[in-house]
Amino acid sequence: MKICQVEKPLVATNRIPGLEHRHLQVVRDGRSMAVAVDAVGCTPGDWVICVGSSAAREAAGHKDYPSDLTIVGIIDHWEGEE
Amino acid sequence: MKICQVEKPLVATNRIPGLEHRHLQVVRDGRSMAVAVDAVGCTPGDWVICVGSSAAREAAGHKDYPSDLTIVGIIDHWEGEE
Amino acid sequence: MKICQVEKPLVATNRIPGLEHRHLQVVRDGRSMAVAVDAVGCTPGDWVICVGSSAAREAAGHKDYPSDLTIVGIIDHWEGEE
Amino acid sequence: MKICQVEKPLVATNRIPGLEHRHLQVVRDGRSMAVAVDAVGCTPGDWVICVGSSAAREAAGHKDYPSDLTIVGIIDHWEGEE
Amino acid sequence: MKICQVEKPLVATNRIPGLEHRHLQVVRDGRSMAVAVDAVGCTPGDWVICVGSSAAREAAGHKDYPSDLTIVGIIDHWEGEE
Repeated sequence: MKICQVEKPLVATNRIPGLEHRHLQVVRDGRSMAVAVDAVGCTPGDWVICVGSSAAREAAGHKDYPSDLTIVGIIDHWEGEE
Repeated sequence: MKICQVEKPLVATNRIPGLEHRHLQVVRDGRSMAVAVDAVGCTPGDWVICVGSSAAREAAGHKDYPSDLTIVGIIDHWEGEE
Repeated sequence: MKICQVEKPLVATNRIPGLEHRHLQVVRDGRSMAVAVDAVGCTPGDWVICVGSSAAREAAGHKDYPSDLTIVGIIDHWEGEE
Repeated sequence: MKICQVEKPLVATNRIPGLEHRHLQVVRDGRSMAVAVDAVGCTPGDWVICVGSSAAREAAGHKDYPSDLTIVGIIDHWEGEE
Repeated sequence: MKICQVEKPLVATNRIPGLEHRHLQVVRDGRSMAVAVDAVGCTPGDWVICVGSSAAREAAGHKDYPSDLTIVGIIDHWEGEE
């Protein structure tokens, strides 16, 4: 899993039905950005754990969900080191 | 998921039957390019969300579809920052 | 999917039975090289579309095939840009 | 599989139920850090083998477990070379 | 699949039962190292084909095997170019 920081919510009105109404967050992983499905309810600035691969799907709700990156936890204390 | 910008459609007449007649788009992810199956109907210049891993398959239509990168949404507002 | 250029066939006499007799091609993806299963019949110099992840398996013939990179199409026109 | 060194445990009180009570470890893979599910019981400083992809799930306990990186072994001797 | 060179065997006495008694090899992929399950019986110095993703599992013996990188063939002739 990756350690990322939440940047802001992402709005994509035109999307496939499979994404349902789950919230998407822009997350920062070092120098690069990605989009993750929010499964825990986080806010900008939070340091979170993001899971990828096929595990991102069940973590987002069910095994058919089309996610390859899902926020699965908020880290209690993180110093942004690295 | 990755944030990419659509460059142009890609034509590959000689391809495996499994790809069916879905549209392929060249997308730019920062400095590198990739090919994605278009599941939303986008046009060059659009900023889109691309899903990879096994999730790209169902997102492209069905779980046996041979995609590892599928465009699943068009971002409402994006500034090309990064 | 990635845009790669076919370099040359690869011969590996000592290999697991699961690879069967499919042809393997060395492909170039920018600066790095990889090996892909050839599902379309391509020749050195061709610009091709390579699919990875679990999709590479069905694209190579059947869902149990042990490929993580399969050539699924030959691009009609490509300028080697990037 | 990757060769990583264990840094320290990671605490994330607010997490999805699917992660259960397995221990999470921050591991260092060269210059970058990641979070892995600890399936062997390791301590900071250990050099470990981490498995990713869908294999990380069964390695963490069962095929539905939402891990994309699981520590599956402690290396007997490693010099931190690379 | 990746083209790697075998460095040396890796010993990890403390490991999960799922890894069974398969041999693990340290392989070099350009500048970085990884650990692969040896499914062909190779020796240090061999240039080999390594398969990743979910395909690494069946290539290692069965679909539940926890590998994300498996050596599936020894290349007949390779010049270490790249």
